[in-house]
Amino acid sequence: MEVRIKETNLRNFCEKICLKLGLSKEDTFNFIDSLIFANLRGIDSHGIMRLPSYIRRLTEGGCKINPQIQIVKEEPSMVLLDGDSGLGQVVSMYAVKAAINKAKKNAVSIVGVNNSSHFGAASYYSIKMAEADMIGISMTNGEPVMAAWGGEKSIIGNHPISIAAPHLKRKPVVLDIATSKVSGGKVRLAAKNKQKIPKDWIIDGDGKKTDDPNKLSMGGALLPFGEYKGYGLAVMIEILTSILMNAGILYNAKSGMKVFDAPTNIGHCFIAINIKSFIPLGDFKEKVDWMVNEIKNSPLAEGVKEILVPGEIEYKVEQKRKVEGIPISEQVLEDMQKLSEDFREPLYVNTTE
Amino acid sequence: MEVRIKETNLRNFCEKICLKLGLSKEDTFNFIDSLIFANLRGIDSHGIMRLPSYIRRLTEGGCKINPQIQIVKEEPSMVLLDGDSGLGQVVSMYAVKAAINKAKKNAVSIVGVNNSSHFGAASYYSIKMAEADMIGISMTNGEPVMAAWGGEKSIIGNHPISIAAPHLKRKPVVLDIATSKVSGGKVRLAAKNKQKIPKDWIIDGDGKKTDDPNKLSMGGALLPFGEYKGYGLAVMIEILTSILMNAGILYNAKSGMKVFDAPTNIGHCFIAINIKSFIPLGDFKEKVDWMVNEIKNSPLAEGVKEILVPGEIEYKVEQKRKVEGIPISEQVLEDMQKLSEDFREPLYVNTTE
Repeated sequence: MEVRIKETNLRNFCEKICLKLGLSKEDTFNFIDSLIFANLRGIDSHGIMRLPSYIRRLTEGGCKINPQIQIVKEEPSMVLLDGDSGLGQVVSMYAVKAAINKAKKNAVSIVGVNNSSHFGAASYYSIKMAEADMIGISMTNGEPVMAAWGGEKSIIGNHPISIAAPHLKRKPVVLDIATSKVSGGKVRLAAKNKQKIPKDWIIDGDGKKTDDPNKLSMGGALLPFGEYKGYGLAVMIEILTSILMNAGILYNAKSGMKVFDAPTNIGHCFIAINIKSFIPLGDFKEKVDWMVNEIKNSPLAEGVKEILVPGEIEYKVEQKRKVEGIPISEQVLEDMQKLSEDFREPLYVNTTE
Repeated sequence: MEVRIKETNLRNFCEKICLKLGLSKEDTFNFIDSLIFANLRGIDSHGIMRLPSYIRRLTEGGCKINPQIQIVKEEPSMVLLDGDSGLGQVVSMYAVKAAINKAKKNAVSIVGVNNSSHFGAASYYSIKMAEADMIGISMTNGEPVMAAWGGEKSIIGNHPISIAAPHLKRKPVVLDIATSKVSGGKVRLAAKNKQKIPKDWIIDGDGKKTDDPNKLSMGGALLPFGEYKGYGLAVMIEILTSILMNAGILYNAKSGMKVFDAPTNIGHCFIAINIKSFIPLGDFKEKVDWMVNEIKNSPLAEGVKEILVPGEIEYKVEQKRKVEGIPISEQVLEDMQKLSEDFREPLYVNTTE
């Protein structure tokens, strides 16, 4: 049975829980807005599905409810922040605002964060920069879930990168990719549905390629996308987010879905590029439109109905879900109903027929 | 018959030709150093193989021998340069030096170039920045050779990105990837050797996947690496190099191997991040070493002899070729011998037995 919850109902429900937990109004908004953003755009793995583990971290002490974000170093074009074990979304919005302000004055800025935690969907932040007329780049590290190219065990995270740029007619053009072939969530879903998976998604605990999704949780590892290229990109993101930012490197970054009473020491890197330092904003946006149209109007391969530009699928899902509500799986519904009881907050659900 | 030419002999030969053409000493050094760098590191497709087409562009007027590089816009953290149709390598080294100088003072810098031409191997520039204790990022656009994901025809270049970071013991960790699954050169080589290719490398002129490498030159197109992810990355690099930098977008960027008497209007983007604005340089380099060792010492998958970090293969090839000389294919040798006659410059070749 699939159910749907209206965006506003889900948002209000989650926000009220956060306020009861003691988060400030602003932090509550940023945190929940990031989760709802992910659900609206079909990135459900980074949406409210994770709320129970975030809340557990907030209540068990791994994540601080009112973090004191510290400026470790600051120059006109950069800031390095200590996130004080706050929610990744809260710390990251602080960082993104700093990145935008600094790039407005200095053409480009880079803001790093250490001592943070899982920040949700990377595109949430790159899009915020694009909405401020920047090209926005966001990256994060995470705990090891992926093998090196040629490796047998998880040694590095499937670190994502997102790049977003504004244009005239639609939401920003936005790339948001993990460096693994597929997410762990997709493999676990296949296991739950007793489906086999393609042999280039994961390796088992002995480093062998397998079509059995159950092997992932039995010491297996995700494989990088594009073979050595995705792996190489993950290594460079590790350098930019954990080494440069003085956060936990490789296995010194912990999983917020496994560790609840201790910091995860995740690092992020945000880069904002002020478009109008280079060309007039109107010219830029028109040219992006022109490029998008040229690509979309190029001849289609057999069986293909439409060429999409990065972020377009997510935008279409968003338009649909804003009207029809956010689909919620049975497991997530159970989790939400438990939160509803624990926090004595009513949850309004529409069952779809 | 494979022949080898000693690095210094090949370098001297190429430099003398450039000086005879009228390039300045500095421009000659930068140009040829980039080509020799590529050959030494096994990136032969971006080495002296291209010298005849570069020279043809210099003599037929598509590329200026003594370009007047202009600063279009400048701020403390950025520069936008008009390359005046100079050699991409010459214009790019000018840009990279500016990027390094500005990042030294401002933590991060971005330098863009328009009205440039093919710049050779992207890692040449990222490594120059890493050698100056920066994390260096280099990108370029190029003429369309790749289909969009779902497209039937070439609509976008297989734009490369390179990211490099210094560490203690070895040459920089450096990623240098094109956004296509393989280079056009690799497909053409298979065609020449009458070999079939894997079905995810190219599509034919009807947009169908094919194992026949001959189809590439018959209206076919390269396919992106990592499916929609490589395509998406190419789109974002197009925005960062051509749209932001006011260079030729999509098919308005021309191929320097096809157009000889007109500008190619290629755009580049260089980003330098000053490491010591974030953490002490020694700490950074030690941490990169630690990460590299952790990854390399992680358990090997079956049949794998060694896990490599980005740039390591190229470094090993470089060490070997510095001693043994640079292997030169029959076709490239013929081209060099023709240059030797045209410019009356002796070419010293060692035949390997």
